[in-house]
Amino acid sequence: MALSLKQIQKPIEAELNAFEKKFRASMRSNVPLLDKVMHYIVQHKGKQMRPMFVFFSALLAGNIGEKVYRGATLIELLHTATLVHDDVVDDADKRRGFFSINALWKNKVAVLVGDYLLSKGLLLSVEHKDFSLLEIVSTAVREMSEGELLQMQKSRLLNITESVYYDIIQRKTASLIVAACGMGFVAAGGAEEQLAQLQSFALNAGIAFQIRDDLFDYGAVGIGKPTGIDIKEKKLTLPLIYALSQASDSEKRKYIYKIKNETHQKNTITEIIDWVKAKNGIAYAQNAMQQYQNAALEALKRLPQNSGNLGLEQLLIFTIERNK
Amino acid sequence: MALSLKQIQKPIEAELNAFEKKFRASMRSNVPLLDKVMHYIVQHKGKQMRPMFVFFSALLAGNIGEKVYRGATLIELLHTATLVHDDVVDDADKRRGFFSINALWKNKVAVLVGDYLLSKGLLLSVEHKDFSLLEIVSTAVREMSEGELLQMQKSRLLNITESVYYDIIQRKTASLIVAACGMGFVAAGGAEEQLAQLQSFALNAGIAFQIRDDLFDYGAVGIGKPTGIDIKEKKLTLPLIYALSQASDSEKRKYIYKIKNETHQKNTITEIIDWVKAKNGIAYAQNAMQQYQNAALEALKRLPQNSGNLGLEQLLIFTIERNK
Repeated sequence: MALSLKQIQKPIEAELNAFEKKFRASMRSNVPLLDKVMHYIVQHKGKQMRPMFVFFSALLAGNIGEKVYRGATLIELLHTATLVHDDVVDDADKRRGFFSINALWKNKVAVLVGDYLLSKGLLLSVEHKDFSLLEIVSTAVREMSEGELLQMQKSRLLNITESVYYDIIQRKTASLIVAACGMGFVAAGGAEEQLAQLQSFALNAGIAFQIRDDLFDYGAVGIGKPTGIDIKEKKLTLPLIYALSQASDSEKRKYIYKIKNETHQKNTITEIIDWVKAKNGIAYAQNAMQQYQNAALEALKRLPQNSGNLGLEQLLIFTIERNK
Repeated sequence: MALSLKQIQKPIEAELNAFEKKFRASMRSNVPLLDKVMHYIVQHKGKQMRPMFVFFSALLAGNIGEKVYRGATLIELLHTATLVHDDVVDDADKRRGFFSINALWKNKVAVLVGDYLLSKGLLLSVEHKDFSLLEIVSTAVREMSEGELLQMQKSRLLNITESVYYDIIQRKTASLIVAACGMGFVAAGGAEEQLAQLQSFALNAGIAFQIRDDLFDYGAVGIGKPTGIDIKEKKLTLPLIYALSQASDSEKRKYIYKIKNETHQKNTITEIIDWVKAKNGIAYAQNAMQQYQNAALEALKRLPQNSGNLGLEQLLIFTIERNK
């Protein structure tokens, strides 16, 4: 049974609060419109999952000092910039239940605010000559944009294989977790030879998170009902990819046709979800998620056993097992 | 009389060609869609004005070595990223006479490609531990996005003053020229105490360039006819700002109303342009451009007199005096 997020945060509560203040300060500017948008972003922020990965990874190696805070700020600025840009990318109307920056201020502002946030993060690291942190964050930006582009390109063709799926989610999702963990560990002076092990944890955890997200669309996680949003957007994820790989040629053609042409109809979405279930697509993806979670936990066993390690383990389990 | 671009480029012809190859190489990726877009960008590139500013500024200080090439690559990646993002920002359909990336591949790809280019530039500098170059480029990203946001915010209100206009164009346009010159100079090991002088050249030159661009809209540059695009987009630039500042309250109200509500009519655009002319808005802006050009030339006089200095001078004159 997973602990609550509050329980997990306990050992780094003071640091998370201090971080909150530092992060707000780092977003200040002298352009009023920008400040309005920033204020909005800070007010509707998420659960601080990324700073938690940074801080626990830092504890794995040492203490949470100023450089670790800068690392967490960098990751959070990057993540926020990505969310803001994603709003353009996905033509999303809502995010976290509120109107997206995009819908409120239009694409223009979203792109510029994203750029601005990236530059703020970079300047912060440049100022302190944090080369190693800069490398981590630039690699993450590159991988994430490559992953998104790969997904867009492949989705259009509707012939995504399992290996392409993993390639995409590694770059799109897992790379940010890899960056967050690496950031905390490197900033706290962690040993080079342990970094690969931590990255292995982060990569496997990140993949498990994304499979979980993709299962959510099929109502196969916690108490959620199927949302079918991915299907509607013609985004092929693991459950559907597996189902298609198990289908006869004629069955495959039938469902590809439905995905291409009929997903504006609610009952088609339900029909596709039922078919994926019948083809064991859900069970298959659940099993894959479990495998990646196990691999992540295995990697942790080969790292120092301390409060940082425990925090990462709990965070992984929480993220996989939470109800929504 | 300004020299032709070819004549100006002569002393750095070999370097510009070498740069071209390095730049293409730096844009390679393993995502096919990305490569297609990149290929398109390279094919429709501009006149290499920015690499020229980088190289001449480098010659001002010393030689064009590998670090200078990296600086030029960084500036060109940043500029290209900005162009691509601008296509989203401006909802531009065309750029340089071809369809924009945005129109061809939609906003999504434009945002991601912009992000990707930025990250490539950053990784290149991080790899070589070019901290000073990174600082220059991050500052430019911040200023440019702030400038764009400031412009969007102010334009909407249609009450832009001359001082706000200069604030916007300094950040939006001049900051890239400042970055390009600083990049070359710092990368070639230029003396700290001369940097401010070079930045003064670049800032004044950048402001003059933007005023020139803004005059172009009124058909007041070279052989061009009025385009009136800025007016149509309700973008207040120096000629119009001056005209409004010289108008009576009732006249002001009349023209603000026209800008707000009637710029979809072609004859309204012509009417506004004629009015701006009658109010001496064009002459006023031309005079301001001349002042900034002179200030830029003055700054050059206080810098070493060599082939780099001469190149910068010729480049400035060419940019102001060219016919289109």
